[in-house]
Amino acid sequence: MKPQEILSQGDMERIHRTSVRILENVGVEFPADSALAAFRQHDVRTAGSRVYITEDQLWDALASAPDQFTLHARNADRSVTIGGDGPVFAPGYGAPFLIDADGEKQVPTVEDYHDLVRLAHQLPNQDVSGHLLVEPGDVAAETAHLHMLYPHMIHSDKPFLGSVDSELGVRHTMEMIHILFGDALGDRAVTMGVISSLTPLSYSPPMVNAIMRYAQEHQVLLMANLAMAGSTAPITLAGLLAMQNTEMLAGIVLSQLVSPGTPVIYGTTSTNIDMRSGALAIGSPELAQVVAAHQQLVRFYGLPSRGSGALTDANYPNAQAGLESMMGMLTVINSGADFVLHAAGILSSYLAFSYEKFVLDDEICGRVRRFHRPLVVDDETLAYDAIARVGPGGNFLMEDATLERCRTEFWEPPVSDRTALDGWQQAGRPDVVTRATKRWQRLVAAHEDPPLDGIIARQLKTFVEEETR
Amino acid sequence: MKPQEILSQGDMERIHRTSVRILENVGVEFPADSALAAFRQHDVRTAGSRVYITEDQLWDALASAPDQFTLHARNADRSVTIGGDGPVFAPGYGAPFLIDADGEKQVPTVEDYHDLVRLAHQLPNQDVSGHLLVEPGDVAAETAHLHMLYPHMIHSDKPFLGSVDSELGVRHTMEMIHILFGDALGDRAVTMGVISSLTPLSYSPPMVNAIMRYAQEHQVLLMANLAMAGSTAPITLAGLLAMQNTEMLAGIVLSQLVSPGTPVIYGTTSTNIDMRSGALAIGSPELAQVVAAHQQLVRFYGLPSRGSGALTDANYPNAQAGLESMMGMLTVINSGADFVLHAAGILSSYLAFSYEKFVLDDEICGRVRRFHRPLVVDDETLAYDAIARVGPGGNFLMEDATLERCRTEFWEPPVSDRTALDGWQQAGRPDVVTRATKRWQRLVAAHEDPPLDGIIARQLKTFVEEETR
Repeated sequence: MKPQEILSQGDMERIHRTSVRILENVGVEFPADSALAAFRQHDVRTAGSRVYITEDQLWDALASAPDQFTLHARNADRSVTIGGDGPVFAPGYGAPFLIDADGEKQVPTVEDYHDLVRLAHQLPNQDVSGHLLVEPGDVAAETAHLHMLYPHMIHSDKPFLGSVDSELGVRHTMEMIHILFGDALGDRAVTMGVISSLTPLSYSPPMVNAIMRYAQEHQVLLMANLAMAGSTAPITLAGLLAMQNTEMLAGIVLSQLVSPGTPVIYGTTSTNIDMRSGALAIGSPELAQVVAAHQQLVRFYGLPSRGSGALTDANYPNAQAGLESMMGMLTVINSGADFVLHAAGILSSYLAFSYEKFVLDDEICGRVRRFHRPLVVDDETLAYDAIARVGPGGNFLMEDATLERCRTEFWEPPVSDRTALDGWQQAGRPDVVTRATKRWQRLVAAHEDPPLDGIIARQLKTFVEEETR
Repeated sequence: MKPQEILSQGDMERIHRTSVRILENVGVEFPADSALAAFRQHDVRTAGSRVYITEDQLWDALASAPDQFTLHARNADRSVTIGGDGPVFAPGYGAPFLIDADGEKQVPTVEDYHDLVRLAHQLPNQDVSGHLLVEPGDVAAETAHLHMLYPHMIHSDKPFLGSVDSELGVRHTMEMIHILFGDALGDRAVTMGVISSLTPLSYSPPMVNAIMRYAQEHQVLLMANLAMAGSTAPITLAGLLAMQNTEMLAGIVLSQLVSPGTPVIYGTTSTNIDMRSGALAIGSPELAQVVAAHQQLVRFYGLPSRGSGALTDANYPNAQAGLESMMGMLTVINSGADFVLHAAGILSSYLAFSYEKFVLDDEICGRVRRFHRPLVVDDETLAYDAIARVGPGGNFLMEDATLERCRTEFWEPPVSDRTALDGWQQAGRPDVVTRATKRWQRLVAAHEDPPLDGIIARQLKTFVEEETR
């Protein structure tokens, strides 16, 4: 299916030209001497911590970024190609709270974190187990990343994301992937840093450090931002697109100057604010427009693209959460995204994660994947002979093709309820959230750690114990 | 935005050729002498009640069907163009039950029907007030259509649909539009019959009668079916598409033979069955595929198209209802549908209607409309000057453009809740369904009948009283 397009070629060129004008004349802030030195070394003009990139320098840097790459898992069967055949899904990222099945706000624990990683491993449509699924509140913030990196390496053999929030987090990530992969690591990309610019037109010192370190280590950079139209960005979405494009392109340029060929995913989760409250609105149709427009821009630059996701402003997995999350997710996939962060679990405008929403959104991922599976039109599927044989008033239930395909032809919902109305009344009208609770509890209970060399497992455990002491 | 396409040109031609082969060799049943006579009069071969249409006869008939037309309302400002700029929305159609805010199944009353019409009139995204919103259970079935036609004419000045289920229903519809519009009726299309074929490859006698009567009266025909892959249709969606295309085209041919130029909308709501229960699955990704493929086929034939809608198999307006309804609705609109039946209110695989879902789905209609509003990219919206002025680290809240546009730039949800997590906790965690209840009650309470000539109002009332006696 061809990606949905909401911008004309002229629109994209106008946005690009505006971004170049901003890059050349307004500049972007990189408050870190090492980054400024890297820019100057490649003849990029700097003034203070402001960097001014020309259009030629931009295109030169973009040329070295791959349009497709592999994110390797320790189980090769679970490695994923990004920029390839279809979208790669990763769970929600960064929520400080949990919302339980009763709607109560909870502070997540390290134990929760382990269960959420088990669930990420078990869910069929999460291709990457993630990172920072929630922020555990029962450990010291400085080393919380160790309590997160460790379960991803132990409970799952899917690819995982790394820590970017501090120099220590980045260093520990790199040390732990060296332990986990050993000599097999080489130059392979096995983890990914989610970089957020500081909109408008800046990067924080830790993010500049993360860009440079991930690039030096040949690991993936997901360059993203969250601009808010009407607050940190112009109120008009075209202006938001031009400005965020500028700041993310500047970050991508840095990654390629530091280490040409660094795999980069180019994304955004920008949206509007609710003008009555000033709060972020991530379930809005404006987010869907930004997502769709941005995917087109990323193709214009020839990079793998990222969109988000199953997003909602609702505080509970209710009708609003369902409809907003589907609008976001279907639009991301229709628009041709290669990688989806926040593919499952997010509630409350990123403030909360929910076990129940995690499994419901994984179902959404399955639905959109099924929708994008080609509809095969050939002599067999057109079934002329069966139609002629059955004829007016007949029935296809007992046709050979029906019997042959009846277990495989149709998608089946793992959570959603197709119980008929009367049966549902008699069963006491269970909500779909109850079904979601049962599913995640069953999946967590059935989880087994995938095999891992005992020495590596002990080394990882010791490393975490020593570094958190 | 260009319509989303899931079939190649070759796929469409293969489906078309298969349909022609079925039309010419298998035929379609029209069990009514008047229809068979009309076919024979135009040299269409018949055998018994079976009709065999050639490809030439098909294209000749399609040539007289308009690609765009106006459905007139008694208030000219509310007339709608179908096949024009954007999709026209009409509420759910045909549900025998209501589900209340507690999830209890209720038998709808005529009083409910009046309130639902008031609500259809009030909701901003329902362009047509509908018909058969529910089946009132407290009146005789034979004349129930009168208890439905009347409130649509009295409580709303939006266009409405007519009755097709019996000869009496069709006759009463025609008599009542003559009363309502008087001499102004002329040849104008003011109502629409929803025709369902009897899949596979048949029509019931009442539907054949309705096709002929609506065509003779220059009223609109919505030609539709509900084929079930694996039951009344081949299990493969390509076969379903080819077969349903055949039977609906045959119905369209009849309408044009009876009265060339009859406005026709060509639609379907076909889907798969759940193979475990044999029940219809209208919230499935397969439905979305059929919807998207069918819109393409309709453009191939050059007719206005219909899709459905905010559909779900859930029995309550919960997360499942939200995500399924959004998937159906967004796909219909992305695929370029001109008319959407079941745009709001449906639960339980068509078995039930819900006041709460009615307002939630109307919000979905608003969201998809906002998503399809063009994203304007020009010097003003690109906002270079503001971006240069604000610069890195600044803020756009107090920019002139923000202040000028802050009340109009963004879409605001009429039902969905953007209360922040803590505020929602403190408010006792209200569900979005509670907000939906408040909204529909407020809208119904605020409803006033639009002005209608007193004599016409009395004539309609007298007509209904006499005919239901």
